[in-house]
Amino acid sequence: MRSFINVEDIGPLEKAMAEAMEIKNDRFKYQHLGKNKTLMMIFFNNSLRTRLSTQKAAMNLGMNVIVLDVNAGAWKLETERGVIMDGDKSEHLLEAIPVMGCYCDLIGVRSFAGLTDREYDYAETVLNQFIKYSGRPVFAMETATVHPLQAFADLITIEEHKTVKRPKVVLTWAPHCRALPQAVPNSFAQWMNAADVDLVITHPKGYELDPKFVGNACVEYDQKKAFEGADFIYAKNWSNPGLTNPADYGKITCDDRSWTVDTEHMSWTNNGKFMHCLPVRRNLIVTDDVIESANSLVIPEAANREISCSVVIKRMLEAL
Amino acid sequence: MRSFINVEDIGPLEKAMAEAMEIKNDRFKYQHLGKNKTLMMIFFNNSLRTRLSTQKAAMNLGMNVIVLDVNAGAWKLETERGVIMDGDKSEHLLEAIPVMGCYCDLIGVRSFAGLTDREYDYAETVLNQFIKYSGRPVFAMETATVHPLQAFADLITIEEHKTVKRPKVVLTWAPHCRALPQAVPNSFAQWMNAADVDLVITHPKGYELDPKFVGNACVEYDQKKAFEGADFIYAKNWSNPGLTNPADYGKITCDDRSWTVDTEHMSWTNNGKFMHCLPVRRNLIVTDDVIESANSLVIPEAANREISCSVVIKRMLEAL
Amino acid sequence: MRSFINVEDIGPLEKAMAEAMEIKNDRFKYQHLGKNKTLMMIFFNNSLRTRLSTQKAAMNLGMNVIVLDVNAGAWKLETERGVIMDGDKSEHLLEAIPVMGCYCDLIGVRSFAGLTDREYDYAETVLNQFIKYSGRPVFAMETATVHPLQAFADLITIEEHKTVKRPKVVLTWAPHCRALPQAVPNSFAQWMNAADVDLVITHPKGYELDPKFVGNACVEYDQKKAFEGADFIYAKNWSNPGLTNPADYGKITCDDRSWTVDTEHMSWTNNGKFMHCLPVRRNLIVTDDVIESANSLVIPEAANREISCSVVIKRMLEAL
Repeated sequence: MRSFINVEDIGPLEKAMAEAMEIKNDRFKYQHLGKNKTLMMIFFNNSLRTRLSTQKAAMNLGMNVIVLDVNAGAWKLETERGVIMDGDKSEHLLEAIPVMGCYCDLIGVRSFAGLTDREYDYAETVLNQFIKYSGRPVFAMETATVHPLQAFADLITIEEHKTVKRPKVVLTWAPHCRALPQAVPNSFAQWMNAADVDLVITHPKGYELDPKFVGNACVEYDQKKAFEGADFIYAKNWSNPGLTNPADYGKITCDDRSWTVDTEHMSWTNNGKFMHCLPVRRNLIVTDDVIESANSLVIPEAANREISCSVVIKRMLEAL
Repeated sequence: MRSFINVEDIGPLEKAMAEAMEIKNDRFKYQHLGKNKTLMMIFFNNSLRTRLSTQKAAMNLGMNVIVLDVNAGAWKLETERGVIMDGDKSEHLLEAIPVMGCYCDLIGVRSFAGLTDREYDYAETVLNQFIKYSGRPVFAMETATVHPLQAFADLITIEEHKTVKRPKVVLTWAPHCRALPQAVPNSFAQWMNAADVDLVITHPKGYELDPKFVGNACVEYDQKKAFEGADFIYAKNWSNPGLTNPADYGKITCDDRSWTVDTEHMSWTNNGKFMHCLPVRRNLIVTDDVIESANSLVIPEAANREISCSVVIKRMLEAL
Repeated sequence: MRSFINVEDIGPLEKAMAEAMEIKNDRFKYQHLGKNKTLMMIFFNNSLRTRLSTQKAAMNLGMNVIVLDVNAGAWKLETERGVIMDGDKSEHLLEAIPVMGCYCDLIGVRSFAGLTDREYDYAETVLNQFIKYSGRPVFAMETATVHPLQAFADLITIEEHKTVKRPKVVLTWAPHCRALPQAVPNSFAQWMNAADVDLVITHPKGYELDPKFVGNACVEYDQKKAFEGADFIYAKNWSNPGLTNPADYGKITCDDRSWTVDTEHMSWTNNGKFMHCLPVRRNLIVTDDVIESANSLVIPEAANREISCSVVIKRMLEAL
């Protein structure tokens, strides 16, 4: 595996799931694979879960880890040719990225959407520069439009907790006070489309996700109808994807707090499990009662980030 | 050992001292204990000695180490239930702490006193949240009211340098230009109470430490009388503990520079050794002459931080 | 080897080169040397290449690595005796440096020139304090006046790419928008003097480097004459070294953009290779065409930083 961005990159999901379970039973089984190999984790944005779980996964596999925190403001890379670089950008990406590749075997990149230029964000400009110029396998640690390590961990969590062969999974928008990217819902939708589940996506009108991620999912604007009979509720806020009105891209165009997932919402489901990728703003996305209930999976879901990442790094090490 | 906060946690001091000496002779003897185990060091406050010595101790024991710097201002955790989290706090401790516990085997926490709310500080609110919610053994890397890794290193240093069976040890307040917590003197007093020494505490009136730490020590307000016949002088500033006047908590209510430890002060002792936990402000806490003298133990004392921490981590690994 | 600052520290260059090639063929050959040894990397200034390549080299050699980022503004060390430390400096170097030495086996220090006080900078005050007080072998990761890890990597790169026994190597000044130190050109000149090359240094009048680094090099103020017949062009900006006019020290006294290395400049050479230590400001130091040409060695040169550093750390480990 040379890159890990979309669900196709991981191959058949049954095989990926089997490897996840094998690693969960013995996290150090493939430790020989990482000997004398170095992972470079490059953060253009802050991270808690991704940083800790990725570092842990790499160490489980016997790798050395170098963490590079790049304050997006402080380290501006020039991307154009021909520019006389006498401004605030002290290095060109055509030097910086190959140099980073010199000192490692694998690269993980976190680089969020700017939410001001849809075309730039959805072209995955930063991620693709690393793929093109680093000379190393690259995996996304949440980029402008995808967060596949999270979606893979979500899949593992659903497989572990499902009680029917093909569960009904609902991705629901919920309100938030800050404009958030679409990376998590995009990848979740993409992975659920590939999994053996019935996917329903519910959100206010105008918040339609990109069709390439929505795939064959059923889109239902009535949140109550969407929740009926659901086995899993996956809550997440995202800002306006700008498909209906391009000027709305990255904006908060709805603050309807009736979408907050509370016990009444959960009563509509089939004793549904509650999921969220964290961090979560309580009583905005979900009430205290729901997130603390026996049906809440948020902590095991976070714990599975170590497992999904271990499978991805294992695959990349095997392909070196 | 599930937590390391107070002197009782380490058990009989003779046994702890014997282990310290064993590890000092061979720092890598217990390296097998830490294989495939991960220490997470969480810093809500800056650190030099604690960070370096704890990381070194964990590596001596064969552990992987993840360091998490949490700028207290930037990462505000919500602690109340029922709050609609639409303000500056992006995560609730009830999610954040168990998630951190997911990715490691042991946790070290540094979180200083805020010095504005005595009750909050002395309840060790942050530390206890980690103990309650992380699911992992937790040790204090200086918290609101204690610094046991330092006190244990101090004990080792005194045992190594004492020339009588039961030395006289004097904890003396000294002036400082900033308001400092009471964690170091609290733990030092607690550990010396448990050790085979005669402990005298001297400070200006109004700076009385909490009785639970003072224990059976003799409190002497006359610094000269306190120093007479002392084998060890342990200097440290602390801000007003607020026991006499609660409104004074965390304030500087005395700036008497006659308390600065100089050669005249040391001449009152029994050729006493000088100790300080560092960092130290010269010519405020202690003069250049005293800290540079042959009787100064500040560097070996700092070096013993690696040893005290190694014993603590060893104990926690053995109990996993 | 107890310190690595000047070219003499590495001994005969033929031997150093042979070791570099040996390590480049098998980066992990000397991994046993670093077992249970710790490198402390202390950064008073930011770093990309040096940080990554040094960390990689130490891990190749089996060492543990502790990285300490010291924001020069936030951690001010008092250096004078007798000062009452009631200002912004919370620790004296006479405590801080030996304490850092307690927790490691080797120390790497990065500390740039302040460019305001030539005497202070050229005395290598910070580096020499570490050498004097840490009790550990110390190597420069770019200090006030030298960058020997870079110069050694440059030598390796020249040896790998030369097509004649004794190539002509030209160190050329180039314009820049910020005042930069002289560390890179100083060390490059020093190492080239010791190597089997013909060294020419070219720069505007007033930018003369310190004679102790210039050595026997030919200084040529006409850039075109300098370039004629060159096998290697090593471009670098530096600020005024203040030798002609002390008041000019650290200032930009020339902004002549005709010195920018472009294809016409390169046409004057003997099909010369282009080198630069990076980061480089394109179209100010060098044009896009030249740095992207087949004759550009900037990426292999950066990759050789891992090799030069591996040799230096290996030597220090062997001498412990």
